[in-house]
Amino acid sequence: MASSPSDYKLSFGLWTVGWTAQDQFGSSSRPAFEPWEYLPKLKEAGASGVTFHDDDVAPFGTDDTEREKYFSRFKEAADQVGLKVEMLTTNTFSHPVFKDGGLTSNDRSVRRFGLRKLLRNVDRAAEFGAETFVMWGGREGSEYDNAKDLNAAHARYAEGIDTVASYIKEKGYNLRIGLEPKPNEPRGDILLPTIGHALGFIAELEHGDIVGLNPETGHEQMAGLNFTHGIAQALWAGKLFHIDLNGQRSIKYDQDLVFGHGDLTSAFFTIDLLTNGFPNGGPTYDGWLHFDYKPSRTDYVQGIWDSARANTEMVTMLADKAKAYRADPEVQAAFETAGIFDLAEPTLAEGESLSDLLADPSAYEQFDVEKAAERNFGFVQLNQLALKHLIG
Amino acid sequence: MASSPSDYKLSFGLWTVGWTAQDQFGSSSRPAFEPWEYLPKLKEAGASGVTFHDDDVAPFGTDDTEREKYFSRFKEAADQVGLKVEMLTTNTFSHPVFKDGGLTSNDRSVRRFGLRKLLRNVDRAAEFGAETFVMWGGREGSEYDNAKDLNAAHARYAEGIDTVASYIKEKGYNLRIGLEPKPNEPRGDILLPTIGHALGFIAELEHGDIVGLNPETGHEQMAGLNFTHGIAQALWAGKLFHIDLNGQRSIKYDQDLVFGHGDLTSAFFTIDLLTNGFPNGGPTYDGWLHFDYKPSRTDYVQGIWDSARANTEMVTMLADKAKAYRADPEVQAAFETAGIFDLAEPTLAEGESLSDLLADPSAYEQFDVEKAAERNFGFVQLNQLALKHLIG
Amino acid sequence: MASSPSDYKLSFGLWTVGWTAQDQFGSSSRPAFEPWEYLPKLKEAGASGVTFHDDDVAPFGTDDTEREKYFSRFKEAADQVGLKVEMLTTNTFSHPVFKDGGLTSNDRSVRRFGLRKLLRNVDRAAEFGAETFVMWGGREGSEYDNAKDLNAAHARYAEGIDTVASYIKEKGYNLRIGLEPKPNEPRGDILLPTIGHALGFIAELEHGDIVGLNPETGHEQMAGLNFTHGIAQALWAGKLFHIDLNGQRSIKYDQDLVFGHGDLTSAFFTIDLLTNGFPNGGPTYDGWLHFDYKPSRTDYVQGIWDSARANTEMVTMLADKAKAYRADPEVQAAFETAGIFDLAEPTLAEGESLSDLLADPSAYEQFDVEKAAERNFGFVQLNQLALKHLIG
Amino acid sequence: MASSPSDYKLSFGLWTVGWTAQDQFGSSSRPAFEPWEYLPKLKEAGASGVTFHDDDVAPFGTDDTEREKYFSRFKEAADQVGLKVEMLTTNTFSHPVFKDGGLTSNDRSVRRFGLRKLLRNVDRAAEFGAETFVMWGGREGSEYDNAKDLNAAHARYAEGIDTVASYIKEKGYNLRIGLEPKPNEPRGDILLPTIGHALGFIAELEHGDIVGLNPETGHEQMAGLNFTHGIAQALWAGKLFHIDLNGQRSIKYDQDLVFGHGDLTSAFFTIDLLTNGFPNGGPTYDGWLHFDYKPSRTDYVQGIWDSARANTEMVTMLADKAKAYRADPEVQAAFETAGIFDLAEPTLAEGESLSDLLADPSAYEQFDVEKAAERNFGFVQLNQLALKHLIG
Repeated sequence: MASSPSDYKLSFGLWTVGWTAQDQFGSSSRPAFEPWEYLPKLKEAGASGVTFHDDDVAPFGTDDTEREKYFSRFKEAADQVGLKVEMLTTNTFSHPVFKDGGLTSNDRSVRRFGLRKLLRNVDRAAEFGAETFVMWGGREGSEYDNAKDLNAAHARYAEGIDTVASYIKEKGYNLRIGLEPKPNEPRGDILLPTIGHALGFIAELEHGDIVGLNPETGHEQMAGLNFTHGIAQALWAGKLFHIDLNGQRSIKYDQDLVFGHGDLTSAFFTIDLLTNGFPNGGPTYDGWLHFDYKPSRTDYVQGIWDSARANTEMVTMLADKAKAYRADPEVQAAFETAGIFDLAEPTLAEGESLSDLLADPSAYEQFDVEKAAERNFGFVQLNQLALKHLIG
Repeated sequence: MASSPSDYKLSFGLWTVGWTAQDQFGSSSRPAFEPWEYLPKLKEAGASGVTFHDDDVAPFGTDDTEREKYFSRFKEAADQVGLKVEMLTTNTFSHPVFKDGGLTSNDRSVRRFGLRKLLRNVDRAAEFGAETFVMWGGREGSEYDNAKDLNAAHARYAEGIDTVASYIKEKGYNLRIGLEPKPNEPRGDILLPTIGHALGFIAELEHGDIVGLNPETGHEQMAGLNFTHGIAQALWAGKLFHIDLNGQRSIKYDQDLVFGHGDLTSAFFTIDLLTNGFPNGGPTYDGWLHFDYKPSRTDYVQGIWDSARANTEMVTMLADKAKAYRADPEVQAAFETAGIFDLAEPTLAEGESLSDLLADPSAYEQFDVEKAAERNFGFVQLNQLALKHLIG
Repeated sequence: MASSPSDYKLSFGLWTVGWTAQDQFGSSSRPAFEPWEYLPKLKEAGASGVTFHDDDVAPFGTDDTEREKYFSRFKEAADQVGLKVEMLTTNTFSHPVFKDGGLTSNDRSVRRFGLRKLLRNVDRAAEFGAETFVMWGGREGSEYDNAKDLNAAHARYAEGIDTVASYIKEKGYNLRIGLEPKPNEPRGDILLPTIGHALGFIAELEHGDIVGLNPETGHEQMAGLNFTHGIAQALWAGKLFHIDLNGQRSIKYDQDLVFGHGDLTSAFFTIDLLTNGFPNGGPTYDGWLHFDYKPSRTDYVQGIWDSARANTEMVTMLADKAKAYRADPEVQAAFETAGIFDLAEPTLAEGESLSDLLADPSAYEQFDVEKAAERNFGFVQLNQLALKHLIG
Repeated sequence: MASSPSDYKLSFGLWTVGWTAQDQFGSSSRPAFEPWEYLPKLKEAGASGVTFHDDDVAPFGTDDTEREKYFSRFKEAADQVGLKVEMLTTNTFSHPVFKDGGLTSNDRSVRRFGLRKLLRNVDRAAEFGAETFVMWGGREGSEYDNAKDLNAAHARYAEGIDTVASYIKEKGYNLRIGLEPKPNEPRGDILLPTIGHALGFIAELEHGDIVGLNPETGHEQMAGLNFTHGIAQALWAGKLFHIDLNGQRSIKYDQDLVFGHGDLTSAFFTIDLLTNGFPNGGPTYDGWLHFDYKPSRTDYVQGIWDSARANTEMVTMLADKAKAYRADPEVQAAFETAGIFDLAEPTLAEGESLSDLLADPSAYEQFDVEKAAERNFGFVQLNQLALKHLIG
């Protein structure tokens, strides 16, 4: 039986449907609506959650009184529509004060300002009952290799994240930080360019326990990296806190297409992992499936809602197919042939010591290398089975 | 005064000059020599170290008696020529038994064999007095997203590395492991595809203290990533154990060009960082500058030695230029303008608490955002200065 | 009703199933069979055609008597199995004599040898009744920008192709040349890197009338280019003479995956174009669908045949889906909304002169730009419809 | 002796220094000046020419009276400063009416409007005495493969270009069209994505004789293509009408860095070709060296002028080095070794017929393949010589 969007925790960034389609080479092609005006339509499109940058709701520079009005009106509207604000994020990249970054700007006064803007938004996130505080450091980086002392940059970045994390702890908020890696654009090279770099960075933090990842499909693919592999490593490390789904076609500018409108096969395996877990069990993801995409500039207002629905529809279709794929006995047999289950078995037997391994002639001295080399893993056949489920 | 190769710790992989130029689309274009025959010429080219895969010296499958002869003859020759064997690495990728990986093969018997081959080579590394044990898992990966249980794959990879590391510790060897990331080729997607992923992985290991990185210029650039940024993050994390220098021109197959024959500007900044350190001090690299390149297939034997010398020459030229660049008062002034020194200053003052920061109106309430946004960092000018030193 | 492979003209390169899986980093993982031994299995996999390089059937250097035996035995076997040899191609890239190219080598004696090898193979192609003579200049190129006089290189390339074409004409053979572009690998940069460059080159030839394209899915995608766009331009120019289908995942080394195992959505639109033509009619392709892929190195002999069948199966599945997609009234309505049919209408009306256009105020002076800008093309919705057909 | 900017024909697009640094992720970081205010500073930076889009001088939608004032004021200022308006181009990409293209929009009324806007600007170009009319079809393309009938799209594109070209001829203007290829951004895939595709397209035009190329460094490199190879093919085809110099670091979003701040080695060889021609003579470029770059968003007003000067400085530095490189007897000797001069010699001797070639046993039957294969072309050494000149 076909699943429906309400079977999943689906959410949208307000800035996605709210994008008026001004890009690097052209002006807006769609009107802007008030933040709360997007909510009923998001609900209709299948969302049960919504997220935003501080400046999406109350424009940068709004005075405090107006600001509170914006946020309370938005909260009210979200409650009324029945959309949970599951995540908040801070804009430290649009205003030119952040042109060299928010936490790693070469100007300390900017770093202090950036930190304050972040801390203020942590309170807001708590007020809205969000569970995740996403941090995308889109301007932390450089175009030229000498534009930053790169050791200091990493130190300042760590100082910044640790300060935010310690504030969360101090306040006792039920919030976790999700770092969002991206390799480039708008900077030539962005710090923490991939899931991996963010994982390595978190390991050096003092408060790394509440810091994890918010990987985005397209961002990893902009570096030619396999998104499913990336989120799998994050899951393995216990760090997949949130996820941004969208579409990207090969290595180029950040496209933010509808999820599934980029690499469809990768989208299938992403949903397979997120909804069915690893074949041999292990860590699972039970967070939100968050869409961070842009309605195409060639569409007008109707296209906003069509594209929003295309995202949620894609998740239900792929999840249904992934379920059937896993349940198929032929697939399970191909898993067996491919050694999928074998890999769950530790290489050293339970209780086997290094000396035991070294003393086992079947492992080396008597191992028939040539025969083992003849194994037909059947990976192509297994992939073909998956594709037949996908397009079947 | 111009520096000379002997001012640096320069080493070559035996497989670099030893590559007979068989590639995916064609057969060898050069004859093979005996392993020891390469050594005098490497010395002449400016090397003081040499490295090898086990199978470079004694072909896969050589029986133990012959094997020892090969290694002792090689050791003797290296000693005689005065080349230190500073690093050893294990071939777990050429023989078809490793077609699905050495440590993460879906076939446990292969994983056990791979581990044994590695452990055997750890002893060899110790015997040769090597300081680094590089592990490139070139076949650990997949072409299709369902070909591996990716949680199990990371678990097995960790088990494997930890087993090798614990063996090193048990034996008391003065060896550290250097993981070598690569995004793809020969597998469609290789596990631990970038410096970042390897750093994140090491953080999950039991014996991660003796496990670090051996990043390669071209491998990061194959993912469009900034090599200088990558090694800087590794240095910041205390994990730059070894380095592979070569050349790559944009995102494509692994070119293994001469160092500097790929992205020249990046090569300049790499050498600047490795020889002059970060502008504000911090962790430095004092390991070997190891070349992992291939003489072009269009060259015959003469080209082997010309290209080897081109590598060492490039290091001395770039290091001399980097030294002058750093010493130039105009560059120092541009550093000041760009805020290079400012970034070393913590964002929170010494002893400043979170409450202090929150209570500082100059940081936020009274901060003149528009004025701060007008800062002219002068990054282009600073880069131009560097380029003028480079090509000046 | 589902179509079957015999409804299409499907062919395989002998070197595809014949690849023994030796790659840049490892030795063969599968045995080689005699050329004719592959034929019955190809037929079973759904092929009705087979193709080869001269050296695939008779190894380079085979003396003429032996050579004729190889070819006649192969021809006999192909006839018996019922496989048409629809295309022949010449290996001017594997032997090291061709290390700097066959037609553009900086060594004239090599160019003369290359030309002779090609001409000899033209006769062979005619003898086998092939219709297309594919020329992939895999070694025509360079790693360093100064390694070739690039004007001379293009001139020599043109001389070479024109010589082969004039020979075909002189002999009166019913053969057309299909140039196969590729951006890089095995050379750092290959001449005629894309479909476009080859089209531009052909326009400069003397005998360009019988020279067209043999584009390969993965080759264009290695440059991040849209394969469907590429073959559409070739069709528009009347130059799509042959086609190589396979799979590639983003910009990296040449993967040669099974067709559809790379970018699945692109594969769908490729088959849609090749089997259904352009929505408004125009030039169509009625040539062979030729697979140029490699069975994965992780598979043994069984995997050769599984993967061959996966290719043909993919074509039938995608073609059936593309047919239903085109026939769907909802799709046709979305075509209308998107202006798909409008684009077939010339911008100037029939008989409208430049002066008429300039004098038409509705075209400019009275044109309501803002209103026109509000059009909702519905491209996302149209793509979603296509994807629903694809995975429906 | 060092050359100076005035030794070259250097020009800047008004939109380069005029870019106020609003990008996809942030708002302007610099104020806008009146168009004519940029001119004296451009002159100071070393320019002798300036170029613009119609809308750069008179904003889109300006009424005709105001419009003429803008243009005459600009012309006056340019004359006064002594900057030649050598090229004009038309903005058919910024206003949302062009969201699906100007000449290939799926809306015929838009195509007619686009054509009229272009024709109007042709008159303007003639009025300013420009020699080149650049056409960048930045919005001609799609994100989804079914969004266009690709045959109709190419037909409409050809119709549009031919209409503009025929208008130029009809009017007797001394103008040539320069098509500017780009692979993607702002569209997912742009039509005529590379130099090659544009060359192939021009060959199909009715008035192709006055249509050529305006290739841009970064645009080709965004597809991983070799820029020097690309402009060489355009030169060979007699189609290099204009050129856009800038910098790009690998395959990613369009960076528009200062020339030489991307791939420095490629920049050197580009200038070498443009100023010294091919080693064996042949077509040369005597047009303008036009900079199409963006001052970094991290810079304020000072950075505009510093970066402009960095471009012109880079040309003089590289040209001086390229001159010395070509004059170096060691380089000439390496050219000889590499066979650079040999490639200029036709493969068939003067007057040699096909039969003669086939009858020459030295070309094939008696050709010593193995010996020829041993040639050491010395390409690495030649590249090293170039790099030593570059950084010497």
